[in-house]
Formats: sequence, C-alpha cells, structure tokens
Amino acid sequence: MAEPPLRPGSAIGILGGGQLGRMLTLSAAQLGLDARIYCEKPDAPSFRVATSHVCAPFTDEAALIRFARSCDVVTFEFENVPVEALEIITRYTPVFPSPSALRVIQDRGEEKAFLSSLGIPIADFCTVDSEAGLQDAIARIGRPSMLKTRRFGYDGKGQVRINGDTNAAKAWRDIAAAPAVLEAFVPFEREVSVVAARGQDGESIFYDLTENRHENQILAESRVPARVAEGLETEGHAIVRKVLDALDYVGVLAVEMFVCNDGGPRLLANEIAPRVHNSGHWTLDGCGASQFEAHVRAVAGWPLPSSARHSDAVMTNLIGADAERWHDLAADPANRVHLYGKSEARPGRKMGHVTRILPLGTLS
Amino acid sequence: MAEPPLRPGSAIGILGGGQLGRMLTLSAAQLGLDARIYCEKPDAPSFRVATSHVCAPFTDEAALIRFARSCDVVTFEFENVPVEALEIITRYTPVFPSPSALRVIQDRGEEKAFLSSLGIPIADFCTVDSEAGLQDAIARIGRPSMLKTRRFGYDGKGQVRINGDTNAAKAWRDIAAAPAVLEAFVPFEREVSVVAARGQDGESIFYDLTENRHENQILAESRVPARVAEGLETEGHAIVRKVLDALDYVGVLAVEMFVCNDGGPRLLANEIAPRVHNSGHWTLDGCGASQFEAHVRAVAGWPLPSSARHSDAVMTNLIGADAERWHDLAADPANRVHLYGKSEARPGRKMGHVTRILPLGTLS
Repeated sequence: MAEPPLRPGSAIGILGGGQLGRMLTLSAAQLGLDARIYCEKPDAPSFRVATSHVCAPFTDEAALIRFARSCDVVTFEFENVPVEALEIITRYTPVFPSPSALRVIQDRGEEKAFLSSLGIPIADFCTVDSEAGLQDAIARIGRPSMLKTRRFGYDGKGQVRINGDTNAAKAWRDIAAAPAVLEAFVPFEREVSVVAARGQDGESIFYDLTENRHENQILAESRVPARVAEGLETEGHAIVRKVLDALDYVGVLAVEMFVCNDGGPRLLANEIAPRVHNSGHWTLDGCGASQFEAHVRAVAGWPLPSSARHSDAVMTNLIGADAERWHDLAADPANRVHLYGKSEARPGRKMGHVTRILPLGTLS
Repeated sequence: MAEPPLRPGSAIGILGGGQLGRMLTLSAAQLGLDARIYCEKPDAPSFRVATSHVCAPFTDEAALIRFARSCDVVTFEFENVPVEALEIITRYTPVFPSPSALRVIQDRGEEKAFLSSLGIPIADFCTVDSEAGLQDAIARIGRPSMLKTRRFGYDGKGQVRINGDTNAAKAWRDIAAAPAVLEAFVPFEREVSVVAARGQDGESIFYDLTENRHENQILAESRVPARVAEGLETEGHAIVRKVLDALDYVGVLAVEMFVCNDGGPRLLANEIAPRVHNSGHWTLDGCGASQFEAHVRAVAGWPLPSSARHSDAVMTNLIGADAERWHDLAADPANRVHLYGKSEARPGRKMGHVTRILPLGTLS
C-alpha cells in the first residue's frame, strides 16, 4: 500500500474545511506542501489559508473527480465524510486513511464489534433497531445507560442518557428512531485519550496519554501528563497499536478511553476518531511535532516525526463567546492562543483554543 | 501612535512574498488573522498560503492604494521595499515598522551614524562617494577593510573586501560606483545576533543571543545558546533596546554583532535588519512563540508573547541543492524541517531550514 513519498511542492487534498483542516494546512505549508480543500460549506476557515479550494457537495461526482486529479494524495478532517465519496476519489489518487478503515469507525455497532474482536475492553453494549429492541436492550444492559445513534454522532449529538425514570419510547423518538447502540454506563474515574499516527511503512508513534474533561458533552480541557496510575499509559498505547495495525491505518487516529477503578485501575475504550483530534491540540505547543504534522507526514509517505513532549500542557477550548477573551488570554505569557478564523461565534461552536505551557515536570 | 488591537478576522498586509512573508502568514493564521501579500514577483511562496495576493510593482500607486484599503495594517518582510511605497500606503492604513525607521536602516551611512549617535560601539567607517574618496578612505581606515554599498545589500551582495593588494579603482567598479561606506575589518571571535520585538505600547521582548556562522557571506548556521562570555547577552539586549526605543520601532528587528576580544570580550554592532531575520528562525522550534508571531502581534497591536526558550537549538539553512536532502533530514527525530515551497533550487537560494532541537542545557 505504501506510495513513494510526496516531494515538496506536491498537493495534499483535504475533505472538510473546519479548524482541523486549517491546522493540517498550516502543517503542510511548513513542510513545503500545498493544501487543497474540498468543503460543502462556503466561507470554511480552511479556505483562507489553503492554496486552493472547492466548495461543492460530497455527492458531486464530477467535482470530486476534478479535485482528486488536482491532488497527489487525499485525506479528510472529519469522520462523517461519505465513504462513497472516498471510493470515487480512490480511483484517481491515493486516499489515507483508507475508506475501509473509515467504514468500520463510522458505525458505532461495527466499531464496538471491532474493538471486542481485538480483545480490547469496552463497556457492555447491544445494538438497537426498534423501540421494542430498546426495551429488550435496557432489560439486558440496565440503567443508567447511554443510547447513541450508530452514525453521525459527535460532541454528544445523537445521544440520550437512559436514567432510572427515562421513558424508552421517548428516548427512541429523541434519537429520531435511528439505528443505535445501548451502552452500559461506565462509572469512570477519569476520561483520557491517546493520539497516535501510523505511517505507510507500518511504523507508529504515540503521543503521551492525555486527560480530558468534558462539559455538556463537548471537550472542555485536556492536560498532559494525565493523572493516572503508572502503567496505564503503556496500556493505552498498546490498545491503540492494536487498532492501528488491525485497520492497516495510515494517518493520525485518536481513541477516547475511560479510566475505571473497579478492583484496580484499568482502561475501557470508548470511541475511535479516525482523524486528528481535539484532545491532541496540545501537541502544537507541547511537542516538537504536532499531531497535524504527524498526519501530513503519514499521508504524504514521509518518515513520522518524534512524538516527544518538551513541556507540560493544559489545553482549554474556546467555545462560543469564550473567544471574546482573546486579548486577555494573549496577554498571559504562559498561554499559546489559537484562533480558527470563524466569523460567527455561535453557542457551542469551537472558535479556538488556548494551551498553557509549563516546564516539563511542573504538573504531576 | 498606538492603534486599537486588531480583532481576530482582520487582515495584515505584507509587502514581499518570500519565505519570511510565508512564515509571517502562517503565524497570522494561528491567531485568526488573514494575510494579504503584495509582491512584484509571480509565483511567490507566500501566495500559496495567504488569504489573497496582489502581484504588481512597488511603483504602481493605484495597486498600492487598493491593497492598503483591503488591509487593517501593513508591514513588510524585506528592507529594500521603497519608502515611497510605504508613504503612499500610510495615507490609507497604518504601517509598522514606520517608514521613517526603515529610511534610517536602508542607508548604511545613516545606519552607522545612527548607531554611533546612540553610543553603540561599531567598527571604524567612512562614507565613500567617488574613486578618489575611496583612496582617501583606505588611507584613513587601512587594510584589510570592507567596501559596502550604502543601499540594497543583503547576503554579501554589494560588498568587496579591500585586501593588501586590492586595486581601489577596480573595487570601486566592482560595486558599480555606487555610494558606499568603507568599514575597518574587525578581527572578530564570533558573529552573534539579537532578535527582538517592540510593541505599539513601547514594551519589548528579547530572544536569547544567537551565535551565527556564515559561509560565502550567507548565514549557514545559528545556535542557541551562543558560546560567549557571561554578560554579553545582557549587553546585546541593551544595545537592541537602545535601537528599538530611539526608532520608536514597532515589530521585530535584528541586530547582527561581532564578538571581539581585544582586551576583554565586547560587542560591536554590525548591521540592523528591520524585519524578522534568518538568525531568528530557531525561535519557531525553540520557543513557545516565534519571532514571526511576535512580529504579527506587534503590528496588530496585541500584547507581545513571551520570548522564553524551551529547548537548545541549532538551525541550518538549506541552500540550493541542500534541500534535496529533505527526506533524510525528516527521518531524524531531533530535526524540525521547514521548506519554503520554492519551485526552483537555484545555487545560493534559501530553500528551507532545519532546526535540531535538544533539551535545554544540552549545548554549552
């Protein structure tokens, strides 16, 4: 599957034009590579920094083909890109990560079956295809539990918590009667994630285990090092290595996990993101080479960079009106401020992030 | 002179589209600011990452005015931009650094008189306006000495060394009979530089003293920390503070200096670069905030970042065919590779740079 490495001056196509595509574009530029963006939305933040862009739907086959032909490799910045679009592009230019890897991860049912098949611990779950099925699932998994649509979920969208008094019929309507999974609620101690990259030669790098805190089901804060028992980082890396190798994955991938403490600390895998991930934004300022550079190098067939960390870091998302504080945030010399060039600060919209950088060993 | 800080989403205009403009553009993007490039040359490397660009001569007043009106502030990436062009732009939008600061530095004669007037030690010199004047100057300054045109010099262009046997008439012809200065040759121990930034509020930051090595009068390597006697860094920062304050300077500026050891170590100022500087490229990987971010913040009226260094660093320029080694360089995990997106690797052309990053305190 390995392609010859892209020479400087080559073009990387990116499907999706949000902040992840924008930060990928900036990393590509550092390496002398052009970025071309394909995004359905006009005024996408990536358009302002990319060498060229196309604004067209993912169902426009002619536009996809023209785009594919203008790029030396194509990747994507979000997991809900239609696999069919990737398959059209693959006929004209290499696509990393592969459409087949994306297909597994796009469906929460397949994703969980895949993790289980690798012997990776996950929460109990069962698939749900009807209101009656949900009743059966609740009987089996118990309450509290989480009902999640199999597809198109992110930042808590398409999720309903099933509490002691939750009406199953209403919950089923709340997720629009979409195919779903019911997951046992995990009484976790902390949420963590591992961001890793795998190259076309099968070599992988793993960034340090990151501790995450969500608010309203959106990532609020990530910190490294994570406050976890010794050995858990190695365990987290081993889980992600299994995932990367089993998918013959090329690019950056993140796995979100729960730290449980039911008879000794252990990790339960929660979900896989087949892309650069918000919980890896700290790598821009805490490491020599960020997750964005790692992804660009992987898809371009370059040697992967070091994932070594030179600083402790606390990353805070700037959501909606938070970004109005940009001036005060920029005035604090320990802060590294990143703004995404979005014009409208809607509630819940990720407008930027700020990473506090501290000498290595400051946080414990 | 201070303007209100530019809000995210504002546009910074940059005159010149080379690698310095490109790296300024990437830093502006990180802060949510657009970059618009004005460059005489087609296919400028900055065009590929900027939000928009204009390709027109600096004598095109209508194009300059349209450009000025499309930007919230204008700056420049090279010191040979005509002051007249800046003065046209200033009528429509703020320009930093100011045209008056640039005017002093563009002329080697005025620059040296300016440094002397501040009590900053420099090599003996005198101005030369004719072949006869050169004969007199050699009699006064002695041999060896350096004949340098007053204007448009960079990377050793417009310079002739006057050795014991150099014919003055030929040297005068070699610099095309242009107004010049003759400088006493300084038997220096090392070459160093200080890169610093001054904000619109008059506050300044100073990056660590950098040791430089030139080959064929082009910077080959920079390293931090510099191998110099204790106290010289403080002296270097004090020199640059005088320069910044005297010019009421806004933005990044570099001063190249010689370390002499004629009866104790001391610094002689050599020349001022009124812009981000090649000897500050290591700040991209050795500091939280680079010289490029510092310049963007200064011209945008933002608080300046910290200049603190988190790593030791050795920066090597990739000149001409050096850049062909990109793959091997990228394979070394201690290397941070930067390529400028230039299509043609002419001899002597700066194609990229690579910075070796080492834990703080490794180099002594």
